[in-house]
Amino acid sequence: MPDDIPVWRCSGGSVAEVRDSVAIEEPMEIRVNAESLAVTMRTPGDDFDLTAGLLFTEGLIHSQSDLIVMKRDADPENPDRENIVLTAIKPCDTPGARSTGERTFLSSSSCGVCGKKDLASIRTLTTPIPASEFRVAATTVYGLNETMRRAQRVFETTGGLHAAALFDRNGMLLFLREDIGRHNAVDKLIGAELLAGRVPLTDRLMMISGRASFEILQKAAVARLPILCAVSAPSSLAVQMARDLNMTLIGFLRGETMNIYAGAERIVF
Amino acid sequence: MPDDIPVWRCSGGSVAEVRDSVAIEEPMEIRVNAESLAVTMRTPGDDFDLTAGLLFTEGLIHSQSDLIVMKRDADPENPDRENIVLTAIKPCDTPGARSTGERTFLSSSSCGVCGKKDLASIRTLTTPIPASEFRVAATTVYGLNETMRRAQRVFETTGGLHAAALFDRNGMLLFLREDIGRHNAVDKLIGAELLAGRVPLTDRLMMISGRASFEILQKAAVARLPILCAVSAPSSLAVQMARDLNMTLIGFLRGETMNIYAGAERIVF
Repeated sequence: MPDDIPVWRCSGGSVAEVRDSVAIEEPMEIRVNAESLAVTMRTPGDDFDLTAGLLFTEGLIHSQSDLIVMKRDADPENPDRENIVLTAIKPCDTPGARSTGERTFLSSSSCGVCGKKDLASIRTLTTPIPASEFRVAATTVYGLNETMRRAQRVFETTGGLHAAALFDRNGMLLFLREDIGRHNAVDKLIGAELLAGRVPLTDRLMMISGRASFEILQKAAVARLPILCAVSAPSSLAVQMARDLNMTLIGFLRGETMNIYAGAERIVF
Repeated sequence: MPDDIPVWRCSGGSVAEVRDSVAIEEPMEIRVNAESLAVTMRTPGDDFDLTAGLLFTEGLIHSQSDLIVMKRDADPENPDRENIVLTAIKPCDTPGARSTGERTFLSSSSCGVCGKKDLASIRTLTTPIPASEFRVAATTVYGLNETMRRAQRVFETTGGLHAAALFDRNGMLLFLREDIGRHNAVDKLIGAELLAGRVPLTDRLMMISGRASFEILQKAAVARLPILCAVSAPSSLAVQMARDLNMTLIGFLRGETMNIYAGAERIVF
């Protein structure tokens, strides 16, 4: 997957020309019902998972069956057609659902609030996660980061890819997706689960390699994930939203340390 | 600036409720000529710099004088009005210039390709950086990261903010801006320089705390920065673009080591 390119590696006064790999970033366009909906800068691969996940976590579809068609563009006159995914979705009239006609929807590798044209539309469509008996041992949580990193082969090579990983309550790694953008890694993971018929993810934990922003929280909430863990810091809005939505939010999960920002009752010591 | 909130800090089997700070993330809306143009998730502060920088690096204005009005919304009926910046800009008929009427323009804290509705529009409007005598000593470059980190007080507190820093050829720190989003930190820095009448930045270096994506490269190129340094990895598209635009791109700048991906002739050993 990574590009192999010539690089000047410098250390003090020495310079060596070596070959090194960099993470691939390419634009992908998503069209919905014949309209251009989004361009996302992503790492190629799992493009259908990314498409399904983005449509789902952004509220354009509510289940796998809302996605009627998903295929590559086949227009031979368009040289970028490999990077265009065509979809057809069912009209959506659920209260709170978003219409593709009302707005332009844009996305980048790390863009989450895409398509919201004004402040009033930056609101989650998600309801709180219901209280349940779902509990996870702190010792299990402490192991997630190391498990994810071991699985993240490409990260070791390029240092350029973010990861999102799905775990069961025993800390078993079920699924890992990588992308140059954090939001894309999350959308690829949730999209794959959606296409496999395994959403809502009510008894799962998601771990991400970067920071926990408002948008990552919102995507997790739409998939009904009760617990989100991040290697790095959450934002103020992510913490507020986790508390509002009855989610468990863990940050700075490194070795046997972590900060619990919301929903501590799900973690058992 | 950071929010101070209660957090459960866990280490092994011990749990302590402490107060900790998190980086603030809030939406800001930019209106141009009475139309909603963008909503960006940003860390409040330097909002006018961010606005000016975003309009400039995305090609909606080409100089400070294209920005006729920039002020806070004063509508008392809108509770979010502190987070709305109203602008008026000159009509733009430069070849390659973008019209606000043609497109919806959206942004998030780390979104760069905002407003480009299809693949064909993901193209830079920027011409290559002209060859010049601008050279920087490798020993100077090696010092940039440490200088930036020392200046990054908020990062030390929350671990949640990205930084963009501007240096002269001797490694003197001229300017630092922070934000929860990398793109915003860059836009705040370039916007401040634009408003101060100091753009183009033809004899400056920019250092960023994160990764170098296509979009960061494009913003640097619009400001005519010849050298971009990043703490982490560049993407494949950033490397390709740096080579196409005759820019110097340095990644993994940590201590006395770095990788030069493009434009090595500007670095003197």
